[in-house]
Amino acid sequence: MKIVPASEFSLRRELEYGSEEQNEAVKRIIEEVRRDGDAALRRFAEQFDGVSVAELRVSKEEIEAAYALVDESFLQALREAAVRIRSFHEKQKRTSWMDLQADGSILGQIVRPLRRVGLYVPGGKAAYPSSVLMNAIPAMVAGVPEIVMVTPPATAGVDGIDPHILVAAAEAGVSEIYRVGGAQAIAALAYGTESIPAVDKIVGPGNIYVALAKRYVFGIVDIDSIAGPSEIVVLADDTADAGYVAADLLSQAEHDEMASAILITPSQVLAEAVQAEVARQLATLPKREIAAQSIRDNGAILTVASLEEGVDAVNQLAPEHLEIITAEPFQYLSKIENAGAIFLGPYSSEPVGDYFAGPNHVLPTNGTARFSSPLNLDDFMKKSSVIYYSREALLRDGQKIIALAQHEGLEAHARAIQIRLEKEGNSNG
Amino acid sequence: MKIVPASEFSLRRELEYGSEEQNEAVKRIIEEVRRDGDAALRRFAEQFDGVSVAELRVSKEEIEAAYALVDESFLQALREAAVRIRSFHEKQKRTSWMDLQADGSILGQIVRPLRRVGLYVPGGKAAYPSSVLMNAIPAMVAGVPEIVMVTPPATAGVDGIDPHILVAAAEAGVSEIYRVGGAQAIAALAYGTESIPAVDKIVGPGNIYVALAKRYVFGIVDIDSIAGPSEIVVLADDTADAGYVAADLLSQAEHDEMASAILITPSQVLAEAVQAEVARQLATLPKREIAAQSIRDNGAILTVASLEEGVDAVNQLAPEHLEIITAEPFQYLSKIENAGAIFLGPYSSEPVGDYFAGPNHVLPTNGTARFSSPLNLDDFMKKSSVIYYSREALLRDGQKIIALAQHEGLEAHARAIQIRLEKEGNSNG
Repeated sequence: MKIVPASEFSLRRELEYGSEEQNEAVKRIIEEVRRDGDAALRRFAEQFDGVSVAELRVSKEEIEAAYALVDESFLQALREAAVRIRSFHEKQKRTSWMDLQADGSILGQIVRPLRRVGLYVPGGKAAYPSSVLMNAIPAMVAGVPEIVMVTPPATAGVDGIDPHILVAAAEAGVSEIYRVGGAQAIAALAYGTESIPAVDKIVGPGNIYVALAKRYVFGIVDIDSIAGPSEIVVLADDTADAGYVAADLLSQAEHDEMASAILITPSQVLAEAVQAEVARQLATLPKREIAAQSIRDNGAILTVASLEEGVDAVNQLAPEHLEIITAEPFQYLSKIENAGAIFLGPYSSEPVGDYFAGPNHVLPTNGTARFSSPLNLDDFMKKSSVIYYSREALLRDGQKIIALAQHEGLEAHARAIQIRLEKEGNSNG
Repeated sequence: MKIVPASEFSLRRELEYGSEEQNEAVKRIIEEVRRDGDAALRRFAEQFDGVSVAELRVSKEEIEAAYALVDESFLQALREAAVRIRSFHEKQKRTSWMDLQADGSILGQIVRPLRRVGLYVPGGKAAYPSSVLMNAIPAMVAGVPEIVMVTPPATAGVDGIDPHILVAAAEAGVSEIYRVGGAQAIAALAYGTESIPAVDKIVGPGNIYVALAKRYVFGIVDIDSIAGPSEIVVLADDTADAGYVAADLLSQAEHDEMASAILITPSQVLAEAVQAEVARQLATLPKREIAAQSIRDNGAILTVASLEEGVDAVNQLAPEHLEIITAEPFQYLSKIENAGAIFLGPYSSEPVGDYFAGPNHVLPTNGTARFSSPLNLDDFMKKSSVIYYSREALLRDGQKIIALAQHEGLEAHARAIQIRLEKEGNSNG
């Protein structure tokens, strides 16, 4: 793991727009699903997944059968995680408000859940029960009545779908599950088919085809942000345990070769100790090849003159995950401007947040923590403004509204006010 | 204005992706701005705007000079509108929270303003001072320290920019103004140039090139939604004044031929009276050609069996603006699921909200009120999760976190917990 000055390092990667062929393929798939509906979904399942899908929808019996296939310790841990995730997201609830003015007018904001949300769950090894909880529970807590999961029809598990995924979906409150993956699943969620009614928003990670399809249908439906490779930044001083820091860096590096694990420290002693620990711990990891390449290509130990300079470097990087393992971690909290999730102290290892603590593990990547947030209840709610203007208020403000409208050359706007002022027998405002 | 049953009408339009040529042009412009910076901006100003731009940044003196060019009644009305808009958006403020658990852990959510926001303001007749207020004030109230406006260098006004726009920007709290428009302005905001530091988010309306450029840089920076043609739906019964209803429909129709103005009513009497009033009022409107075409192509009077059925039609249409002019308008409020802004009663004409009442006039169009909200403070703030896990909590939950990580095949995640449990001398959880 290389040790370099912080000033020489940047985490930002170019956006992924996909190749022309990939974009064309996605466009064609979406058009075919719009045209042929379920028939297109079955055709693509045979073509891409090598599976002949009889029933698109997973039945209640299949979900019940899945419970018999997962072991009790997994189910218990999953349920406790779900309780904690629900409890954290409950605190994000917002209420509508209406404000009565002295002139009799009422202004307000109504907050409502979306009606129907689609959750994409990748197939194979990238099918994580924890991600099902993290995406579905906030929608559930927000009050979304219809939460729809789609996932590729694979060739193992309960009729093709990993039973752990089915159990996680049931525990999280998913109301419908369909055997469909890839860009065709996104098209089905956006436009609807005979079997799958259209949704208002699509969330969940996926491969490049899924990401391009989400980008394409954005506007027809809402989408969550397109997730980039995962990142961790650890800001630590010489009070940190090098073994803990190295283990946390490696937990990020094992995700994939593009994942990025970075230590920022003013301590040369810690830098070298972590460097040695990473090498030592790496040797026995099952995913050591992936992790080693991630560390080599996208990992770094950045040296800084002080923790304050380290905080500046953190804000530049705007990491998805930030751990602060210093003598007094809370003292830097108010200075962290850009980070998806902030883990404080030696016991707040990133996997605590990935699985269990309660805050969401769907976090802004690739520097987007500058302007994006962890997945949260707001992502599953929408607002409407309320304007009830009183006669008194209109008579008072009418002429000013007319002046502004006329200045903008919008005479019909002015007349909509004028006709009322005339009828109410008072055009002096 | 045609009268048709509600069941036969749909408002939804296809998404606008632009032609291949437009997309290629935008891509090339963005690449040139990334490569050549300010020089590219000056080159495009000559090429597209026919203007040789000496200073990109508008000076303090130019802004002061603008004040001398706007009349007092405009300035007074603008200032009152600004006060009301500020006051409404103040109510959307949110606070950070941290929650101390019984086990000593702390979980929380920090809410912070974005650091730097860019506001695009179109040139020519589409330069609306009211839009400057509506886009900039929420950013200001959110606490964004740097609000940057860009607008095309035109050939009139104070050195090319309408003085009313400059005054509105100054009143709204815009901190920097640059003479640059089109896709090149979006590129400058997203990537930065020598004169214009990059922003975190871009808001504001623009033409197809601006919209395509925003779509292209989404991910490098955040963007607001791409606005479609404007829409109004009026839900009214026979207590409504046909003249008021017609005037409100026309105020929307004058925006452009693609704008959509729709009346939904169970009253045949009102339907016919509004039809007659629209024809009558249309005849004397300055923008009667635009309004007439809008009414003909995208306007309709939809008849329904009851107001309840009218509410269903509203929810299907998910209009940008909804007026409810019925005997008891508030009685339907809880049933309106999809609408950007809801105007209640006979005095709440849409222009009241466009200019003055306080709620934002930047609203979701083209059915996106199903999942989008009026521009609001959340659009200018971001959240970070906070996780401080105590030793006690980690010892209690460690084994469950390990179980979940191992199930997902993420052994390095499990080991990051395991190394702590071992060191703390307790691996029983």
